[in-house]
Amino acid sequence: MKVDVSAVEQAAINSIIPELEKAHDELLSGTGKGSDFTGWVKLPGTRDRDEFLRVKKAAKKIQGDSQVLLVVGIGGSYLGARAVIEFLRGSFYNLRRKDTPDVFFVGNNLSASYAEQIIELVGDRDFSINVISKSGTTTEPAVSFRFWKTLCEKKYGKEGARGRIYATTDAARGALKKLCDSEGYETFVIPDDVGGRYSVLTPVGLLPIAVAGIDVDELLSGAAEMMGICAVPGLENPAWQYAAARNALYRAGKTIEVLACYDPDFVFMAEWYKQLYGESEGKEGKGIFPAAVSFTADLHSMGQYIQEGARTLFETVVLIENSSGSMAVTSDPDNVDGLNFLTGKSLSEIELQAFRGTYLAHMDGGVPNLVVSMDKKNAQSLGKLIYFFEFACGLSGYLLGVNPFDQPGVEAYKRNMFALLGKPGFEEEGRRLAARLDK
Amino acid sequence: MKVDVSAVEQAAINSIIPELEKAHDELLSGTGKGSDFTGWVKLPGTRDRDEFLRVKKAAKKIQGDSQVLLVVGIGGSYLGARAVIEFLRGSFYNLRRKDTPDVFFVGNNLSASYAEQIIELVGDRDFSINVISKSGTTTEPAVSFRFWKTLCEKKYGKEGARGRIYATTDAARGALKKLCDSEGYETFVIPDDVGGRYSVLTPVGLLPIAVAGIDVDELLSGAAEMMGICAVPGLENPAWQYAAARNALYRAGKTIEVLACYDPDFVFMAEWYKQLYGESEGKEGKGIFPAAVSFTADLHSMGQYIQEGARTLFETVVLIENSSGSMAVTSDPDNVDGLNFLTGKSLSEIELQAFRGTYLAHMDGGVPNLVVSMDKKNAQSLGKLIYFFEFACGLSGYLLGVNPFDQPGVEAYKRNMFALLGKPGFEEEGRRLAARLDK
Repeated sequence: MKVDVSAVEQAAINSIIPELEKAHDELLSGTGKGSDFTGWVKLPGTRDRDEFLRVKKAAKKIQGDSQVLLVVGIGGSYLGARAVIEFLRGSFYNLRRKDTPDVFFVGNNLSASYAEQIIELVGDRDFSINVISKSGTTTEPAVSFRFWKTLCEKKYGKEGARGRIYATTDAARGALKKLCDSEGYETFVIPDDVGGRYSVLTPVGLLPIAVAGIDVDELLSGAAEMMGICAVPGLENPAWQYAAARNALYRAGKTIEVLACYDPDFVFMAEWYKQLYGESEGKEGKGIFPAAVSFTADLHSMGQYIQEGARTLFETVVLIENSSGSMAVTSDPDNVDGLNFLTGKSLSEIELQAFRGTYLAHMDGGVPNLVVSMDKKNAQSLGKLIYFFEFACGLSGYLLGVNPFDQPGVEAYKRNMFALLGKPGFEEEGRRLAARLDK
Repeated sequence: MKVDVSAVEQAAINSIIPELEKAHDELLSGTGKGSDFTGWVKLPGTRDRDEFLRVKKAAKKIQGDSQVLLVVGIGGSYLGARAVIEFLRGSFYNLRRKDTPDVFFVGNNLSASYAEQIIELVGDRDFSINVISKSGTTTEPAVSFRFWKTLCEKKYGKEGARGRIYATTDAARGALKKLCDSEGYETFVIPDDVGGRYSVLTPVGLLPIAVAGIDVDELLSGAAEMMGICAVPGLENPAWQYAAARNALYRAGKTIEVLACYDPDFVFMAEWYKQLYGESEGKEGKGIFPAAVSFTADLHSMGQYIQEGARTLFETVVLIENSSGSMAVTSDPDNVDGLNFLTGKSLSEIELQAFRGTYLAHMDGGVPNLVVSMDKKNAQSLGKLIYFFEFACGLSGYLLGVNPFDQPGVEAYKRNMFALLGKPGFEEEGRRLAARLDK
């Protein structure tokens, strides 16, 4: 994995080194803001071996007795697993013939239409449930879990359902943990010191990922390798480079970061990225606004804005250096489209030149381009990329001066929603809000 | 359909009225910038009845003889049809049991891995091809069409393929039109005065949409209804309200617009919207940056940024007033999650209160919220929404002072890419670019 930040003046990066040294030290020693939630920093090295083996065993069991896994979760309990599965197994995962179960993500919205589509898709197939929630009281997954638990018990009986419901939750406290203890569900732990958006390499992400047939050992091994690389202070550290470059650009007025990738299977990795950076940095009236595009498709939609719109953007391209696939351009004796000069060239080669041409075009247009190169589209490289982005995000949040590990703003809508729904104790506020809306 | 712009001061909106009057007049009379490309303004009323009937007939034939339709196109020849199909038939369209063909979109990227996944998904099923390109020389769809045309001829013979390849292209000129004439493919016209991002209600969008089993008469009837509403000048006109409100916000420093919807099936409509607005306005160093979120999922990812990040955002919520689906919260005698106060409430009701609670929370956080309400999730209402967004975009671009109907910035990457790929005539430039990259 390499990071190219040559689009940013070396002097601007150098000027941030003292801050980076402090941020790095705070992150590793657990002395910075929000340090109660920096367990992910050493996670790939200290993971609970027994629990990891249980995750793999549960995945095998689900693969054996289920055609569908329903993953009930929202936010960090949703995006990471979906992102990894779609990137490594393809965005058409559920549609393709394969020997691992379909994976459907539920409890991440309040759409009745969505819920009904999933019910139809599960049909009469055998299913298991992985409910993922620290507290067990978040509305979307809790409401969804009520439904699927009932259906599971109806179909398999109370005892049968016990063997098909897996909970990833707090080690000791919370409504969901209490339920698991009384019902006897197998449980996996969301560590106390790892927040949702940093949890993809805990059982939160690993169980669904393993069910989808991805090698979680490789994923963690890549993460552990990057943990070693990121632990070393200095500008050789790719996380230092990326954190410094994006903050230098932010301070120079580039307030929007567009994450780009040329692989359509990366779309949900970009969603994971947007949560990681947006939720970590978007507070106290500051933060780079994270956006994402999928190239080359979006060169024909958002490409115009990037090339010539307001010059408040910079771009970070995730480049997959050794794209798989050997498809090449077929010949056309009539050369109707005038593209015979491409005949025999592989799509991967054309894609690479599209990246290089776009890089220059956007740079020339005033959009600095950072490039994060990963070796291959595989679990090992993805593990590295995930840890890299996490570590750089921690550094970057400290450079910005915020606590990159809390999310105080997420409560505001929930409180209003509960009040408007007449939650006991919120009646007065509910009336007040309803009156505001009626105006 | 209603637009609520009460988040913006009436005085700020009123001050834009003179500009709106001019923009409205220019748009309807075809006297503004880029007026050669305003054919879409009157499209729902003047559409070619014969061709429209041929579109429906072709769709019926494809439904009868194909299990898969491959739609070859990029940009406006891709997003509109995909957006409408996913919104009205569900984002799981291809996965669900249904009596209409799967629809796969190809030629919108250069990923070999993507191409190989589609080949596997088509398998030995019967397929037809709809290639959509004004010129026929755009790299991504041209390369893809070479491949699928060859495969189709191999499978069905030259004569058989002739009955399975449909081209939507220029009426008279261009490489693709020439090929169609010599091969005898059925062709549909991309009107000269309608650009890609405004083309979803031409055969560009309508053929794939009809194949997916959507009532295109209803879609066009909704658009025609909105055409009548939008033709009337004045602040009663919802497009005037929306265009005025977003420009007032932009002028007050709100440079990012976040389009939000609570229906997960809306995700690709938001992609269509991002192209429409981003490509129309992102030029000459200006333009509102369009972003999108899917709620409530993204309240648990981008929600933190929206609530408390840099105060440069405003939000536009597309609200579906009468959500379908009757799912309700099931009871839990133990009330483990503490949500029994929701028992019996429909998901739609909870979703509505989530919207209302979020509206207030984000407004209180300093993010002005505009609300575009559509009546129902059906073709008629969607036709109205599409035309509304198109008309408002035309007005809005004129308010911004740009030509909302060109996209000069899309050429820059293509030129570089061709040069780097050694296109004849570009050799010198290719060497120059390669030298820059090697530095």
